Amino acid sequence: MYEKRTITFKNGKIYTIDQSKLPKEEKIIVLENYKEVAEAIKSMKIRGAPIIGVACAFALAVEANKLKLSNVKMAIRKLEKVSNYLKNTRPTGKNLFWAIDKVLEASRNSKDVKTLKRNVIRTAEEIAENDVKANKKLVENGEKLIKDGDVVLTHCNSGRLATVAYGTALGSIIKAWKSGKRFKIFITETRPLLQGARLTAWELKKEKIPFHLITDNMVAFVMKKEKINKVFVGADRIWSDGSVANKIGTYGIAIISKVLGSKFFVVAPSSTFDLSLKPNETVVEFRKEDEVTSVMGLRIAPRGVKVLNPAFDITPPEYINAIVTEKGVINKPFSKNIKKFLLNYRNHSNL
Amino acid sequence: MYEKRTITFKNGKIYTIDQSKLPKEEKIIVLENYKEVAEAIKSMKIRGAPIIGVACAFALAVEANKLKLSNVKMAIRKLEKVSNYLKNTRPTGKNLFWAIDKVLEASRNSKDVKTLKRNVIRTAEEIAENDVKANKKLVENGEKLIKDGDVVLTHCNSGRLATVAYGTALGSIIKAWKSGKRFKIFITETRPLLQGARLTAWELKKEKIPFHLITDNMVAFVMKKEKINKVFVGADRIWSDGSVANKIGTYGIAIISKVLGSKFFVVAPSSTFDLSLKPNETVVEFRKEDEVTSVMGLRIAPRGVKVLNPAFDITPPEYINAIVTEKGVINKPFSKNIKKFLLNYRNHSNL
Repeated sequence: MYEKRTITFKNGKIYTIDQSKLPKEEKIIVLENYKEVAEAIKSMKIRGAPIIGVACAFALAVEANKLKLSNVKMAIRKLEKVSNYLKNTRPTGKNLFWAIDKVLEASRNSKDVKTLKRNVIRTAEEIAENDVKANKKLVENGEKLIKDGDVVLTHCNSGRLATVAYGTALGSIIKAWKSGKRFKIFITETRPLLQGARLTAWELKKEKIPFHLITDNMVAFVMKKEKINKVFVGADRIWSDGSVANKIGTYGIAIISKVLGSKFFVVAPSSTFDLSLKPNETVVEFRKEDEVTSVMGLRIAPRGVKVLNPAFDITPPEYINAIVTEKGVINKPFSKNIKKFLLNYRNHSNL
Repeated sequence: MYEKRTITFKNGKIYTIDQSKLPKEEKIIVLENYKEVAEAIKSMKIRGAPIIGVACAFALAVEANKLKLSNVKMAIRKLEKVSNYLKNTRPTGKNLFWAIDKVLEASRNSKDVKTLKRNVIRTAEEIAENDVKANKKLVENGEKLIKDGDVVLTHCNSGRLATVAYGTALGSIIKAWKSGKRFKIFITETRPLLQGARLTAWELKKEKIPFHLITDNMVAFVMKKEKINKVFVGADRIWSDGSVANKIGTYGIAIISKVLGSKFFVVAPSSTFDLSLKPNETVVEFRKEDEVTSVMGLRIAPRGVKVLNPAFDITPPEYINAIVTEKGVINKPFSKNIKKFLLNYRNHSNL
């Protein structure tokens, strides 16, 4: 099975693909300190909630590896400082906070700096391994929802690029196709940063899977005309009531899906879940105006134009049919089933 | 009142602004034969259903003006040939067919070529004058629907650029602002050809009216967050059941509006109405793939990617609150009221 990794930690350095250069150029970048990782996340060289989590864990591993201190408390304080810096890169994706806290916890359980280094690096590597394992499992769960003759739509990019391997929503679609199922695929371009047109198109093309690209505003017309019956999206944060923060545009597609009769599935690993009871709109990141007034550096709007640029939106649970995780499919009622799922998960997981 | 024309017929030639060059460049183009007009329409130098109708009427005036024939039947046949060519430029907007047929009718009522020339040119000029008069009136009707404190959204461009003067939906918004009402305005960029980001932004900026630009997929999130309560769009064709063909994306916005509780208004002159009882999806134009795989000539998607590029969609009447015309606001039930409106209109209009 295809398990090429999009991010690795080797000899104290992080190697990953620069996603901002795709599809024009497949460029591997090497990150040697946490500031470089933070910059890569902010500038979308690394994007996708699961891979961002892993990148931050690796950033802590890079810094732990370099530690010259002998005092373990000072070492922990240094990593906490790094963590705060990393946590300020992007506020929406839960995986980032989850991964950083997991590594920090491991660092705090160290009796000396040598143990701390080992604990931090091992935990970061485990987080990456577990992302691979979780995604391998969840795309198997996701692909079962796809049948021959379906017409599916996906938004943004939730393929292997968004994770260490396998992907989530797009991963399920790719897995279903590779299993021999035959169905139609539509992908949205996903303005402003075009993760659909650039990254999802690139992944599907590499896999030689046929699909059609549409602009984001074509969803309603194409869903009706082409009889799209299943939508698969990833998630950046899932609250315990079943609300889902995901790439801007998800909420509109979910509304249209419900009205036009398409099912709507969210596919994400359990590191995406937020235990808060209610969604919190303040986690939605607003990005720079020029992402909207320009396309890949090309100015499209007049100078001086004001812009609103939310990078994510929040889809309420009533628009979601099921949430696919590595531990199985969570059905409604979400409030009850997500709680059960997370409790069960905590007790039995090796994460 | 501001009545700068976007298209004029003078000395046998058509003068208009090249909309494909905006906002970078305000370039006036001169069109001297019907093939140049057809090319300008196909390549979106001239776009917007009402102005396309006028451009075609003027194209017939250009050709009539040049006629060297003495046989009136042959002259009519020549104009019919030109008409068929023009009718093949864009299939969705009703105004094009309406205007051409109106000019052809005038040509057929001519006893000699001299009369034909006069009839054709006069009718074309009347169509342009009546577009100005109708829009002046309908933006007055449209602006009455806007109140202080409203939060309005418009899609694509339905300003003066889309017409000879005043515009329709955007015209109503501009009129309301100039009347001293104060409200918030959001505009969608309108992929693939960015009529919102390029043209609506340009018009509003010229009028010094504040607004925010968003990408098409931000509508649901921004509507909820900013409490957008009224959407105004133009129309390319309105069927007698109240279904509306308009720029791709309109249908999705209409669905989201209904679900989130915003009112949805269509603003268009009566030349947009199609007497057919039911909407006909075959009038929806599908355009070239590279409009989607590129943005203003810049390639965004990998090579060889397949695309669906419908330029319009059809919004069913249940998503529309009212249709604003120059003769007043048409409320529900549309089937009954549109019929009444059109009958009344035929009997009393000077069109």
